[in-house]
Amino acid sequence: MIKKLGAEFFGTFWLVFGGCGAAVLDAAFPQLGIGFGGVALAFGLTVLTMAFAVGGISGGHFNPAVSLGVAAAGRLPWNALGPYWAAQVLGGLLAASLLYLIASGKPDFVAGGFASNGYGALSPGHYGLLSGFLIETILTAGFLVVILGATSRTAPAGFGPLAIGLALTLIHLVSIPVTNTSVNPARSTAVAFFAQTAAPGQLWLFWTAPLIGALLGAFIWKYLIATSES
Amino acid sequence: MIKKLGAEFFGTFWLVFGGCGAAVLDAAFPQLGIGFGGVALAFGLTVLTMAFAVGGISGGHFNPAVSLGVAAAGRLPWNALGPYWAAQVLGGLLAASLLYLIASGKPDFVAGGFASNGYGALSPGHYGLLSGFLIETILTAGFLVVILGATSRTAPAGFGPLAIGLALTLIHLVSIPVTNTSVNPARSTAVAFFAQTAAPGQLWLFWTAPLIGALLGAFIWKYLIATSES
Amino acid sequence: MIKKLGAEFFGTFWLVFGGCGAAVLDAAFPQLGIGFGGVALAFGLTVLTMAFAVGGISGGHFNPAVSLGVAAAGRLPWNALGPYWAAQVLGGLLAASLLYLIASGKPDFVAGGFASNGYGALSPGHYGLLSGFLIETILTAGFLVVILGATSRTAPAGFGPLAIGLALTLIHLVSIPVTNTSVNPARSTAVAFFAQTAAPGQLWLFWTAPLIGALLGAFIWKYLIATSES
Amino acid sequence: MIKKLGAEFFGTFWLVFGGCGAAVLDAAFPQLGIGFGGVALAFGLTVLTMAFAVGGISGGHFNPAVSLGVAAAGRLPWNALGPYWAAQVLGGLLAASLLYLIASGKPDFVAGGFASNGYGALSPGHYGLLSGFLIETILTAGFLVVILGATSRTAPAGFGPLAIGLALTLIHLVSIPVTNTSVNPARSTAVAFFAQTAAPGQLWLFWTAPLIGALLGAFIWKYLIATSES
Repeated sequence: MIKKLGAEFFGTFWLVFGGCGAAVLDAAFPQLGIGFGGVALAFGLTVLTMAFAVGGISGGHFNPAVSLGVAAAGRLPWNALGPYWAAQVLGGLLAASLLYLIASGKPDFVAGGFASNGYGALSPGHYGLLSGFLIETILTAGFLVVILGATSRTAPAGFGPLAIGLALTLIHLVSIPVTNTSVNPARSTAVAFFAQTAAPGQLWLFWTAPLIGALLGAFIWKYLIATSES
Repeated sequence: MIKKLGAEFFGTFWLVFGGCGAAVLDAAFPQLGIGFGGVALAFGLTVLTMAFAVGGISGGHFNPAVSLGVAAAGRLPWNALGPYWAAQVLGGLLAASLLYLIASGKPDFVAGGFASNGYGALSPGHYGLLSGFLIETILTAGFLVVILGATSRTAPAGFGPLAIGLALTLIHLVSIPVTNTSVNPARSTAVAFFAQTAAPGQLWLFWTAPLIGALLGAFIWKYLIATSES
Repeated sequence: MIKKLGAEFFGTFWLVFGGCGAAVLDAAFPQLGIGFGGVALAFGLTVLTMAFAVGGISGGHFNPAVSLGVAAAGRLPWNALGPYWAAQVLGGLLAASLLYLIASGKPDFVAGGFASNGYGALSPGHYGLLSGFLIETILTAGFLVVILGATSRTAPAGFGPLAIGLALTLIHLVSIPVTNTSVNPARSTAVAFFAQTAAPGQLWLFWTAPLIGALLGAFIWKYLIATSES
Repeated sequence: MIKKLGAEFFGTFWLVFGGCGAAVLDAAFPQLGIGFGGVALAFGLTVLTMAFAVGGISGGHFNPAVSLGVAAAGRLPWNALGPYWAAQVLGGLLAASLLYLIASGKPDFVAGGFASNGYGALSPGHYGLLSGFLIETILTAGFLVVILGATSRTAPAGFGPLAIGLALTLIHLVSIPVTNTSVNPARSTAVAFFAQTAAPGQLWLFWTAPLIGALLGAFIWKYLIATSES
């Protein structure tokens, strides 16, 4: 179990350091910056790369909502959920701390939103709470369908990390303007307290919606799609 | 059969929600938006991810033209075509409805074209009807050649969803300026009625051209390329 | 043999229609266009997708220089080279013709360079002949090393089309500013005569350099890298 | 051994020619250039493509820090480290020389930084030494975890080059603004002396930090994540 938690800790570290790092350091670089598209690619590649590396050890969740959905689908023992969540949140927090230290080495550094998630005034496109709730729930549900489906017996073996990582890229391509994209409570928690905004006060949504979405996705997969061979 | 229809329903939901969602919410975001390239990637990743997840259950078409071409190539029973089409169109419509609800949560929301397809005045680059018909037909034909070839016995096993999803990205990289890219009647139907334009009156082209292209592609594959081992 | 030539014809059609189509129709679309990066992705995806689809039938070259290098490495009979080249050039020409017809359906259409290759005044960045010769030769040599290596016995089976397609994307990311990127005489020939420039007079370079580069790459692979197990 | 060194020489040639070539020739091309995102993709694809091609021969490191970490993890004999480093540095230098020759064929060519790495005044975003040291160390550590994990027995076979190449893309998406991204002393050395800046005086950091990071990554993988089956 300790190695599984090490894998989840370091994998979530990589997700937050790589994904939020690309957002904070590179998204809006003058002329040459990577924009929302590059951030979407970065988040997806954190999961793609680390799931290939350590997925065989811990399952490669790096996300409390994913762990909940996988547990609900019967593929993770319920008593592993607490330790997984703890490793994920702590790994994310370490990553955000180091990222803050690095980012502050720029002469004109301003933390601003620091890649935090939000709705209303804190949404990149000023989308309201309902929009934020719906898109986080729906995209997390689809994420879980991809995760459970791409690692099932009816899917080609070995391609899971590719499908799952690129699903996270897709999710960001759709939803960065709405909530800055969470679908991952550990990622939201990691950076919220470094933001110079009211992000911590909106953190509840980025636990609630992904967790509900994950349960919904596990339900859709299990009862509406999966066959007895899956 | 019911699980196959569930897979096609949810897969087409994902295609429209993800692909049209990226177009509506993120393509033209000031400074940081993803542009046509990001939308092309998003559409491709909807199919790549969901075909890995549920392709082993339903075949992973998410597109009435694909189902027709696959049936014409003898790989889907003809009597499954009607139910597949219904599941695909309904899944797309649900996605477009939820997307509209989310998009309208932006204070200055304007539906505009709402990612609908068109020619002439409704083409992003004002290309005429003949250009639209040709490019939709040719690209759907090529799409079917990739689909039938990449899932044949002469192709390496398991890579089908990767090749097929990225073919859809390629198709969008070429043709968004011409028709906003359909090659998928369910995707076109899903958003047409949410547009504040005359898109519904042009919907006939985005059924006709993809369906003709799919038959053409199945013919090219079967008679000009495939060998007895394929 | 006829099916192999069908595969090479249609594959090269797809390469020119998709790659040059993205360049002509979408690269410089106002605000939202895909730029050189999107064109690079499109060219790579034409080969990735079609090599997965028909690579098991013809080898999936779609490029006279590749066929030469593969023949030089002993993996294609020399007497197949002529027919392969003919199928490739003809497939490319058909694609460019249809692309021209589609592109001319835009009210303010101007053919301009029409995605043709060039040096000096016809180089996107006005690079001279020596730069063009060197970069085309070097990149084609590297392309052949990737092709021969990724399909050798020491490489993981099935991944060839992925590596080869993405190598073509990489090649375009480097060299579009220099020559608009050929590394493929059939692609250069297909569009040269549709350009409103002196491109046909420079076509000799885009046969010479890729063919020399392909022989160089086959030599590097065979004598400097490959082992007896390869 | 000679074929292994040929593979490392040519692979590092490809990494520097392709990655630094994209940066020098294409990143800042007016209007259509590929930006930092395209450079990130190019670097990753050099490793992805060449690791598929020659990884089965030499391991496909193309990077002295990677060779050190792989040796520290017990997967490369220590006496191979010197020859590997020499082949990598020489391959990189040849690539930078040819790239300089090609780039100078542009009428208004200015070498400028020539894709060199730096901190402080030589950092693209003017990040200080501590930021540069931390990000290079952390990202190289994560790179090694991906490399060692994705090629371990608990990872799906064959996908290593895909995961490792895309990890390098991710690393660039995060860190180009900070140090112009090294994580590879051979890449830094290759271009430093062509820059018209004080880059050679900062080269020590781009040996020190990646080498420390590689040892840290090997340690994290071996003692905190890997199980007895890995």
